[in-house]
Amino acid sequence: MVDIVMVGTVALDSVKTPFGQKDDILGGSATYGSYAASFFAQPGIVAVVGDDFPQDNLQLLKEKGISTDGIEVSGKTFRWSGEYEFDMNEAKTLDTQLNALATFSPKIPEEYKEAKFLFLANIDPNLQLAVLEQTNADFVMLDSMNFWIESARDKLLEVISKVDVLLLNDGEARQLFNTANLVKAAKQAMDLGPKYVIFKKGEHGALLFSDGKVFNAPGYPLEDLKDPTGAGDSFAGAFIGYIAKTKDLSEPNIRKAVVYGSVVASFNVEDFSLENMKRLSLEKIEQRFNEMQELRSF
Amino acid sequence: MVDIVMVGTVALDSVKTPFGQKDDILGGSATYGSYAASFFAQPGIVAVVGDDFPQDNLQLLKEKGISTDGIEVSGKTFRWSGEYEFDMNEAKTLDTQLNALATFSPKIPEEYKEAKFLFLANIDPNLQLAVLEQTNADFVMLDSMNFWIESARDKLLEVISKVDVLLLNDGEARQLFNTANLVKAAKQAMDLGPKYVIFKKGEHGALLFSDGKVFNAPGYPLEDLKDPTGAGDSFAGAFIGYIAKTKDLSEPNIRKAVVYGSVVASFNVEDFSLENMKRLSLEKIEQRFNEMQELRSF
Repeated sequence: MVDIVMVGTVALDSVKTPFGQKDDILGGSATYGSYAASFFAQPGIVAVVGDDFPQDNLQLLKEKGISTDGIEVSGKTFRWSGEYEFDMNEAKTLDTQLNALATFSPKIPEEYKEAKFLFLANIDPNLQLAVLEQTNADFVMLDSMNFWIESARDKLLEVISKVDVLLLNDGEARQLFNTANLVKAAKQAMDLGPKYVIFKKGEHGALLFSDGKVFNAPGYPLEDLKDPTGAGDSFAGAFIGYIAKTKDLSEPNIRKAVVYGSVVASFNVEDFSLENMKRLSLEKIEQRFNEMQELRSF
Repeated sequence: MVDIVMVGTVALDSVKTPFGQKDDILGGSATYGSYAASFFAQPGIVAVVGDDFPQDNLQLLKEKGISTDGIEVSGKTFRWSGEYEFDMNEAKTLDTQLNALATFSPKIPEEYKEAKFLFLANIDPNLQLAVLEQTNADFVMLDSMNFWIESARDKLLEVISKVDVLLLNDGEARQLFNTANLVKAAKQAMDLGPKYVIFKKGEHGALLFSDGKVFNAPGYPLEDLKDPTGAGDSFAGAFIGYIAKTKDLSEPNIRKAVVYGSVVASFNVEDFSLENMKRLSLEKIEQRFNEMQELRSF
């Protein structure tokens, strides 16, 4: 039984960081998002991969209880290649091969249609809208990135107006709303429709805005950050996973969900691809959640 | 009776931000630091100004109970000119005129010598050391900046080894300790001697490191940021002011001091020069301190 539908990319990434280089590793926004959510609930992916996509990657997802029934096979897999330099804060995209994504038309499996939670992960806003229109979720969250802000701004704003939670990183928020000030950007975002706006700030944590309230979530101070890829997606996945598990949409619970998002993202970046999430348990997540309380109390 | 000795600059600044341009306004690390500290304790400044320095600037400090007995008058006042662009995160220095600072040799007034707290604000580390050697403080804090990291690195490291608290912004910490990782930078810093290390992160708040502990202090989400000049100095001043007031050097109290630092800095940047601090009261500070609790609880 699928709780959370996620549309996004399932990709093969080539990533270079100061700590190494890995080629053709499992990546993509729906991959990271669903894996992170699977610690809390049952996600189902809507995506496309090519016939070059390794079966054991799909197996890895299935073993975590993630439904891959909505993953279509067609052409070649989407590939992203990127590099992180010294400060690890921003990926430099070296190459993007859309491949099967270029002609993807998402179809939602029947068993996804009663899911109450929908995550429109980072992908073409036209595809996000197509999925939104085929589902009946009560709680919809959207993530995006600079590429879509630049190339499909109007469509993106249209989809944003239909969701409950808008998730962007702080740089993207400044770009989309044309202001350096995140408080102002959040107000503009909420004027479009979303009840909650979350700006991810990498190592600095995240800000959650809602009607008249701000929550300042900490980042977890990591000594061994190896690969930031998927940090935002795993944040989002754990966030919506926790909400799907608790079914509590109150602001105090949304705050907790943000902290679970930060926690799972902090584990994810400690190794390449999904390697560290594969070693992760709910017990370790709870332990770091408690540390988050400790490191910010005064 | 002076509680806190502060050596640093008392300056005339010319500042341009997206919100306006102001010339020859009161600035300098000791100015911002002492004014912020004066809400909690009695600071005394050690600095030099020129005979071109307006008397009403000195009057403003005196009226807040700040001792200016350690301010020497000689030659022309130190002048700094800077500009902040769209994102307001970093000042671009347009011009620096050391003037009287170039030949300044600090002399400590007798009534400063029993002060238990010393703030070596941002100035030439040779001057910081000269002041340190003439005082008998139990609790010494040091701030610095990229200019001294580049031009006087060895002397700066020597002074750091003699202080209790090292304060830097995150970019400077990465530069001084040659690592992008702030946890690693903090360990290196503590190995030099300081018991506490604070990395200021502008709008993202601050990190406090001590033996085995990390405290993640929030930034206050401001909608009207006008001029970031003096944010770090007012943070530092309020921090050491609160500690001088409470005389409690325990880690939990140091955490509170960091939050008071963030609070006063957040008021400071809402207007140019000391304009907003002039309108500030302890009551408003306490109110925003309580908001800081609220905006980070989960």
